Amino acid sequence: MTNHDQFLSRSAEQMKESAIRRMGTVLASGRDIISFAPGYPAPETFPWADFREIARELLGGADGGVLQYGPTRGYRPLLDTIVGIMRQREMPTRLEELLVTTGSQQGLDLIARVLLDPGDVVLVELPSYTGALTAFRNVQARIVGVPQEADGIDLAALDATDERLRREGHRVKLLYVVPNFQNPTGLLIGRDKRQRLLEWAQRRDVLIVEDDPYRELYFEGTTEPDVRPIKADDGDGRVIYLSSFSKTLAPGFRVAWIAAAAPLAAKFELAKQSADLLTGALDQRVVYEACRRGVLDRQLPRLRQHYREKRDTMERSLRQALGELVSWPEPKGGFFLWLTLPAAIDADAMIPRAVEHGVIYVAGEAFFVDAHAAPTMRLSFSAPTVAQIGEGVSRLAAAIRAELDDSAGITAARASRP
Amino acid sequence: MTNHDQFLSRSAEQMKESAIRRMGTVLASGRDIISFAPGYPAPETFPWADFREIARELLGGADGGVLQYGPTRGYRPLLDTIVGIMRQREMPTRLEELLVTTGSQQGLDLIARVLLDPGDVVLVELPSYTGALTAFRNVQARIVGVPQEADGIDLAALDATDERLRREGHRVKLLYVVPNFQNPTGLLIGRDKRQRLLEWAQRRDVLIVEDDPYRELYFEGTTEPDVRPIKADDGDGRVIYLSSFSKTLAPGFRVAWIAAAAPLAAKFELAKQSADLLTGALDQRVVYEACRRGVLDRQLPRLRQHYREKRDTMERSLRQALGELVSWPEPKGGFFLWLTLPAAIDADAMIPRAVEHGVIYVAGEAFFVDAHAAPTMRLSFSAPTVAQIGEGVSRLAAAIRAELDDSAGITAARASRP
Repeated sequence: MTNHDQFLSRSAEQMKESAIRRMGTVLASGRDIISFAPGYPAPETFPWADFREIARELLGGADGGVLQYGPTRGYRPLLDTIVGIMRQREMPTRLEELLVTTGSQQGLDLIARVLLDPGDVVLVELPSYTGALTAFRNVQARIVGVPQEADGIDLAALDATDERLRREGHRVKLLYVVPNFQNPTGLLIGRDKRQRLLEWAQRRDVLIVEDDPYRELYFEGTTEPDVRPIKADDGDGRVIYLSSFSKTLAPGFRVAWIAAAAPLAAKFELAKQSADLLTGALDQRVVYEACRRGVLDRQLPRLRQHYREKRDTMERSLRQALGELVSWPEPKGGFFLWLTLPAAIDADAMIPRAVEHGVIYVAGEAFFVDAHAAPTMRLSFSAPTVAQIGEGVSRLAAAIRAELDDSAGITAARASRP
Repeated sequence: MTNHDQFLSRSAEQMKESAIRRMGTVLASGRDIISFAPGYPAPETFPWADFREIARELLGGADGGVLQYGPTRGYRPLLDTIVGIMRQREMPTRLEELLVTTGSQQGLDLIARVLLDPGDVVLVELPSYTGALTAFRNVQARIVGVPQEADGIDLAALDATDERLRREGHRVKLLYVVPNFQNPTGLLIGRDKRQRLLEWAQRRDVLIVEDDPYRELYFEGTTEPDVRPIKADDGDGRVIYLSSFSKTLAPGFRVAWIAAAAPLAAKFELAKQSADLLTGALDQRVVYEACRRGVLDRQLPRLRQHYREKRDTMERSLRQALGELVSWPEPKGGFFLWLTLPAAIDADAMIPRAVEHGVIYVAGEAFFVDAHAAPTMRLSFSAPTVAQIGEGVSRLAAAIRAELDDSAGITAARASRP
């Protein structure tokens, strides 16, 4: 048999499986498990009838382009639609600054490939989105974390970290942030802090990668000015902005976009030519038609209501079942709740017990960039039903209490040893 | 304004636009142009009614998975179907050796990222498929060409090239070939030579990347044994095999696959997690249903007939319009005819004149790895109608004759100078 290891690139030698996607394997085992693990949107919210009608019309055969190869930049009417969305979000954008991507994951991957050489530094929030960490890691970038406060990334720590890295001779190229309902913490970067982040990036000559998939999914008390993108104040091409239709229409279409300064967008296009030539032709047209026919606009208030109800259920259930044992920042939008457990608990080590109890989550350590045994976990409230959320939290509480009993037992046993 | 150039990775600095896709821009100008440039399948052959019915059923809403995130490896029933296709092609394959990709372009990109470090050598046929060259170039591999004979790559030249490169201290990792109806030459690697190529790769400890999108599209006189893959004789995981539904169902779905030794397939999966998480969920299901319902099987004889007729038209038109001026190897299948012009003609320089005459093609130089001013061009007969092929060849002939007249005029003028 061929020895394949000797053929691997340095990047491939280091590739690791995503903890989130590994949870998918547990689910596929077919047991009765309630999953708070992957951040899947709720399929019962998808506008099935609209999609069915749109697909029927598109597949009439009159327009061969519906199933043909097409431009790497994206389907032109969809690009025009995205220009309109960007304008609504207060980021006037020209066509040459846009690129349709095969999900925002591809956007992150293109950014990594076009902007990072091995050893280049990317600064990230701690904790941060695993998919971005993987994309940066796969080009052998050096990922350095900066802690978050209640209103997002800690600016003083950011500046000190950057200062230290430069002193050590590193090239700091990017700052990656998810300002709206961050994955995994659900945090929102404060309005002032967004402005100061941009000023910081200009002063330090760092590009900001602003990943914004959840911004439309805000709950009560949060308004448009709270989710105003950093890029809305970007006059000099400092911010690369990503957003997606995965959370508002459906992720199975794999349609998202990047907006960036034209010279960067041109490079992203070249990288995409080699990555997959184009995003699915039918998918792009379905998404375009869903925008044109007002399906997306009708979805948004429904989705806010839907996910808010689930968030409420999860918070209520956690308070009832675990009371003072756990804490979390209230998610003001999005899909995620970031739970901090008693210090005695290792969330990763607890996974087998959770599975026994019929519930799974993603242990916090997946979202850190170094081994970080934090007693934290990410709970997604987006996909399970309201009833499942209640039941799942009960199971989780039982697992946590059993884990605490065991750890207390071990501590007691240790203490009683001579 | 931010200086973006200083942020580019070394790879991005070198990215170049694909000549084939640049031709797309010419087409988008809206002039009356007959295109022999991109290798698009003929949309009038797509089974629209079947796709419409399949999409209607899939989008019923009963199965949320149709529009949801899903496993990176691919939709399980589709993977099982591909196992069946691989068996038919005499390459028994296990699930853990398979990965669905977002078009074969993604497959090539994943192979490049998992197997190549900057400076590693990939051997390719000369001329070779531009999409593969770009994928290899984007990881800064060293691409070295080997000439082809009538029955495919020249084995003696291959061995000598490999020998020379090793002597010079290079690491030769991959040999990339398109054995069936190669893009761009339409050539078929001979049966014996396939066997000898595999032995060569074993002896030299090189992996073969076998890219096989056209194998089902063989014309009269060519039979299954002629298109038997190299991988069919691969007992030790030496061959990485790629194939696709783009040429037989429709490219707009972006559904293709890689088959490789399980440890490599596992790495490709990890690389794909970071590249786009998964191939379009709806797309994969439509392709699966088209296989399950026999749509694909019904398509194949129709497509062979369809493209053969177009090939015949193109060859007849070329003989009538250009006679002895040009030559080409007969395409025994696939989408492409590789035309050699009189030596005085530079096919790339002739493009503006061709556009004036209302026809475009891809100049041969795009398929070489160094500047190679060969008087060659790739003509795709797949997308234009039979009538357009006849008219397009007339226009091409007029452009070629005008170019020859000019070049003769220049020569005469030069000769008459003192």
